[in-house]
Amino acid sequence: MEMKKLDFRSDTVTMPTPEMREAMYRAEVGDDVVGEDPTIQNLEHLAAEKVGKEAALFVTSGTQGNLVAVLTHTKRGDEVLMESEAHIYYYEVGGMAALAGVIPRLIPGNAGVITPDALRKALRGENIHFPNPTLLCIENSHNRAGGTIWTPEQINDVAVAARERGLHVHMDGARLFNAAIAQNCHVSELAAPVDSVMFCLSKGLGAPVGSILAGSTEFIKRARKWRKMIGGGMRQAGILAAAGIVSLKSMTERLSDDHTLALEIGRALSSIQHLTVALDRLKTNIVLAEVDPAWGTAEKLVKALATEEILASDFGPQTVRFVTHKDVGKVDADKLVDALKRLMN
Amino acid sequence: MEMKKLDFRSDTVTMPTPEMREAMYRAEVGDDVVGEDPTIQNLEHLAAEKVGKEAALFVTSGTQGNLVAVLTHTKRGDEVLMESEAHIYYYEVGGMAALAGVIPRLIPGNAGVITPDALRKALRGENIHFPNPTLLCIENSHNRAGGTIWTPEQINDVAVAARERGLHVHMDGARLFNAAIAQNCHVSELAAPVDSVMFCLSKGLGAPVGSILAGSTEFIKRARKWRKMIGGGMRQAGILAAAGIVSLKSMTERLSDDHTLALEIGRALSSIQHLTVALDRLKTNIVLAEVDPAWGTAEKLVKALATEEILASDFGPQTVRFVTHKDVGKVDADKLVDALKRLMN
Amino acid sequence: MEMKKLDFRSDTVTMPTPEMREAMYRAEVGDDVVGEDPTIQNLEHLAAEKVGKEAALFVTSGTQGNLVAVLTHTKRGDEVLMESEAHIYYYEVGGMAALAGVIPRLIPGNAGVITPDALRKALRGENIHFPNPTLLCIENSHNRAGGTIWTPEQINDVAVAARERGLHVHMDGARLFNAAIAQNCHVSELAAPVDSVMFCLSKGLGAPVGSILAGSTEFIKRARKWRKMIGGGMRQAGILAAAGIVSLKSMTERLSDDHTLALEIGRALSSIQHLTVALDRLKTNIVLAEVDPAWGTAEKLVKALATEEILASDFGPQTVRFVTHKDVGKVDADKLVDALKRLMN
Amino acid sequence: MEMKKLDFRSDTVTMPTPEMREAMYRAEVGDDVVGEDPTIQNLEHLAAEKVGKEAALFVTSGTQGNLVAVLTHTKRGDEVLMESEAHIYYYEVGGMAALAGVIPRLIPGNAGVITPDALRKALRGENIHFPNPTLLCIENSHNRAGGTIWTPEQINDVAVAARERGLHVHMDGARLFNAAIAQNCHVSELAAPVDSVMFCLSKGLGAPVGSILAGSTEFIKRARKWRKMIGGGMRQAGILAAAGIVSLKSMTERLSDDHTLALEIGRALSSIQHLTVALDRLKTNIVLAEVDPAWGTAEKLVKALATEEILASDFGPQTVRFVTHKDVGKVDADKLVDALKRLMN
Repeated sequence: MEMKKLDFRSDTVTMPTPEMREAMYRAEVGDDVVGEDPTIQNLEHLAAEKVGKEAALFVTSGTQGNLVAVLTHTKRGDEVLMESEAHIYYYEVGGMAALAGVIPRLIPGNAGVITPDALRKALRGENIHFPNPTLLCIENSHNRAGGTIWTPEQINDVAVAARERGLHVHMDGARLFNAAIAQNCHVSELAAPVDSVMFCLSKGLGAPVGSILAGSTEFIKRARKWRKMIGGGMRQAGILAAAGIVSLKSMTERLSDDHTLALEIGRALSSIQHLTVALDRLKTNIVLAEVDPAWGTAEKLVKALATEEILASDFGPQTVRFVTHKDVGKVDADKLVDALKRLMN
Repeated sequence: MEMKKLDFRSDTVTMPTPEMREAMYRAEVGDDVVGEDPTIQNLEHLAAEKVGKEAALFVTSGTQGNLVAVLTHTKRGDEVLMESEAHIYYYEVGGMAALAGVIPRLIPGNAGVITPDALRKALRGENIHFPNPTLLCIENSHNRAGGTIWTPEQINDVAVAARERGLHVHMDGARLFNAAIAQNCHVSELAAPVDSVMFCLSKGLGAPVGSILAGSTEFIKRARKWRKMIGGGMRQAGILAAAGIVSLKSMTERLSDDHTLALEIGRALSSIQHLTVALDRLKTNIVLAEVDPAWGTAEKLVKALATEEILASDFGPQTVRFVTHKDVGKVDADKLVDALKRLMN
Repeated sequence: MEMKKLDFRSDTVTMPTPEMREAMYRAEVGDDVVGEDPTIQNLEHLAAEKVGKEAALFVTSGTQGNLVAVLTHTKRGDEVLMESEAHIYYYEVGGMAALAGVIPRLIPGNAGVITPDALRKALRGENIHFPNPTLLCIENSHNRAGGTIWTPEQINDVAVAARERGLHVHMDGARLFNAAIAQNCHVSELAAPVDSVMFCLSKGLGAPVGSILAGSTEFIKRARKWRKMIGGGMRQAGILAAAGIVSLKSMTERLSDDHTLALEIGRALSSIQHLTVALDRLKTNIVLAEVDPAWGTAEKLVKALATEEILASDFGPQTVRFVTHKDVGKVDADKLVDALKRLMN
Repeated sequence: MEMKKLDFRSDTVTMPTPEMREAMYRAEVGDDVVGEDPTIQNLEHLAAEKVGKEAALFVTSGTQGNLVAVLTHTKRGDEVLMESEAHIYYYEVGGMAALAGVIPRLIPGNAGVITPDALRKALRGENIHFPNPTLLCIENSHNRAGGTIWTPEQINDVAVAARERGLHVHMDGARLFNAAIAQNCHVSELAAPVDSVMFCLSKGLGAPVGSILAGSTEFIKRARKWRKMIGGGMRQAGILAAAGIVSLKSMTERLSDDHTLALEIGRALSSIQHLTVALDRLKTNIVLAEVDPAWGTAEKLVKALATEEILASDFGPQTVRFVTHKDVGKVDADKLVDALKRLMN
């Protein structure tokens, strides 16, 4: 079984805790499509409060939360700006174009962060040849940049610049609590400058299924209808919400352990021949290791690790990603480092 | 709380059984996005087997299953044919046009059933002014017609006619098990003539969340990607699947009780002044009662019942819908009938 | 050559007049994408003035004008209401769903006309299951109903009802001048109650190519961008506009001749065995003749006429359409009637 | 009037020649929607033959030809690859996402040219998170790179690489004849490796309106329906086609004059203080001049020239574009150079 393997592929593999299973078992539920699931309502209220927004909506995944945000903020034909390797562009199957009919405009970031100047440069002005830019999406922490983080100031600066040009701002915070813990701030400080924010209850927070989209009451009212259209309206969804409440109440603080472990792994890997880790970017629970082509490819390394029952992600031709989470610990990290030392020498 | 009310609005309000809660509590799970949730796999295999298809996909709602089916079967710009009041047209927020870019062509049915002749008449032939028809959707049981059913022969006849013209056929079987039980056939007989079928684990089968889309292995492979795009890919979704397995294994036979109760209600209502019930259409768990305008509107009746803690659905200007399900019984039905007698005289 | 045939298929086959050819030859032109074609500007000003709107936009076809109107008035996911056999639904390749992402809601009309009551009945109220209705499209004259017309009062009544519910109103006036001439009113009276109107310079008005979309200045500004997106922005388009100006200045009054001829044909056909014509609907230049199945099908009749070098349109299993226009006259009509008498007896 | 100005903004401003006006005046026409316009047919045959494809379709603009190509080659949800500043991405209002529902994947080119390696690197392999790549669009000559050209070998190499991965290839050849003349090859050599090609009859070839989309007979049959959906089906369109035939028959060879003049301008500008021209990229009729920020911005220069009745395009913060065409000559070029010398010193 996969259970026995050391799984550094992603924090999406985290298992629900006993407390979550208990909470799901006892969850009071109702038909959420007609607004009668009390546990969903509790979670949505709690989540909105956490990020400092008026309202929140439970969705089944980060991809769904981002898609609903785009559908709600934009009209068909709009231009949506984002970082060149944003998850919403890179990993979400092109849904923004296929379903929302908006075209991405990509802005190269600095460790995933877009400056106000870079945003202004990307905005081309009114012209009959150009689509209307109406939304900026930022990602915090930024997955492909290596779990890098935006500070509240960086978010505020780019949001001010966006708003000057009439754009709304959505934050893909699939790992928003990681971004907050890493800089010892509150998630609401990160969310304050943006119009809407999505964060995941699964991943590091351990819930089996679910994410939250939060924003103004009016925004969430409209988002609810888009969620219904894509079939995200669920019936006795309080089962899932019960685990999400546990995530929010008791799983956020422990993310710092994941960050500590990731940094330890990063440092250890830095000293391994043929591996390079950008330690200055290693702020959260993602370790990106560059494999020296002289040794081989990322794919080769991932396969070699798999033979040792250690799982990692092929993240580019020469890049391997290791993610820490609640179901890997110090002992596992040591085994990983040992294996890498053995394989790369 | 809503719990105490007699709820005849819909079978979507059904509560998970203790057995389901137990199964969810103990469910073995994994990351289903990478295909590693064993309980999801068990459910999908079981579900495919039940309806006699090669493969199946867990989705979070009937709407999602229908949308994924349309996205998978069609290309942007196609024409999709369906009954004039099909759920997929009437109640699914126009997703087929908004997201799939296909245009509905409506065929008036006979108690929800489309004949091969009606289909042929609706197909206009190749012409540069007409979109390409590529999909027929049928609904069994048919909600707005009053839970009416298609026989295997009726399905086969229209499917043959559809295929002669190059169309695929999708069956919205949100209440497919009701349709099978009502005519004492197996769901696989109903599903045999169609390319894809969706049915709900929630509703009468009682699972808190979830539906199944089934079809060929190749179809489900492609459907899985569309599900991912709309954010229906979930992580440790086995929690929900565990309840769905209970639905399939132990909840299907009891639907005949719902049908018996619905018929009893229907007959009782027939004898009430100012109410009319088309008993010949009453085959499953849906009772449509027409309110005599001389008495008032459907809305008035629904409100009057609500004051007696009895919930029903306003289904048209003069139509009220009552749905039977596992959480209403003979005693509740008697209370409903009594209340109606009192209110309408 | 087709030229020698008597062509009653459609008024779309009309040839440009010598005056039009002369005007095109001498047209002063410029790059219209940058707003520098003086002849286009003249046409757009003249057209806006004719229909009493602030601004107008030249488009290459009625289909394009209707599509641009829908794209401009709606957002993806909206519901658009129209008569059951409206041209925009029936003959425009499903573009509203494929490209604009809006779903049609069909209202059966009375000779193509929708009453305020029928509209209100079709509007279902706010509900998370229903798309948002935002646009009503009406068609005047109504092609499939047989060139039937809406009076200014009928238009106003339904527009008032639409606006009460927050809908905009677009009029497909492909044959708007026919509708005006037939009831001896001005096109601006027909256009006054609606937000936007499209009418064709081709068809009965004889221009080789082109239609007009008119509305408020702000609407046309946005429409211009949608036209650009679909590639309807043209360079030295004044060539075509020059003919359109001739259409507007000297071709509108002669439509009454087409109506007179159509009525003559309709009356003559009424007396032919196996043919039925609804003379009460025959108000403009379209004659719909129902073929008695005892004689055969519409297709059979169209083919039989073709062997006599007379062209007509197969408009339904038993319906043949004859359209009068500037390139058919009394002599041609007599030949048509004679041929039909011969063929049907 | 604009006529008196020296217009280097674009070759889109070219005026129809007397021969074209004569041809339009005398054009034999018919209803092209039903396939009966002989002049359109002549043009489409001639155009297909020129580029060595089975069939061709007249469209009203380059944007329309590219959009129809994308609509025909792709399905909703596909990924389309193109150079980072391709016209189809940069200047076509985002239509590919808004209307076709496909998402762009951008490949940085070398002077507009994409190598097979760059293409392979951009193709990420099958993964449930990634849209399906199905189309590569290349642009020849490449506008934003400065009218740079692809050789037949470069086209073939990347087309082979594309096809190995199952992609189709479309060439945006808005200025295809410029690309051919510049390297003394035939347009059919450039078009041979691709599945479809669009080229403009307007621009340097001088026709007032129109472009051609060419490909296989089957492709063009399907493209014709997409053109109809967007309202590009026209009636007596032979008027425009008549000019297009003149373009193809007598206007292609003279493009070399435009190239010669552009090179002269480029060389002269190179010697002007504060202006830089990449002469190695100057192969066709586009001159890109970089303005030294010490002097000011591109916008400032364009405005300064305008006061001298000389028009140019602001092409970026520091980039001005000058385009040569049949309506500017040596004398005009000298005036331009003189003005620039005066302004920049």
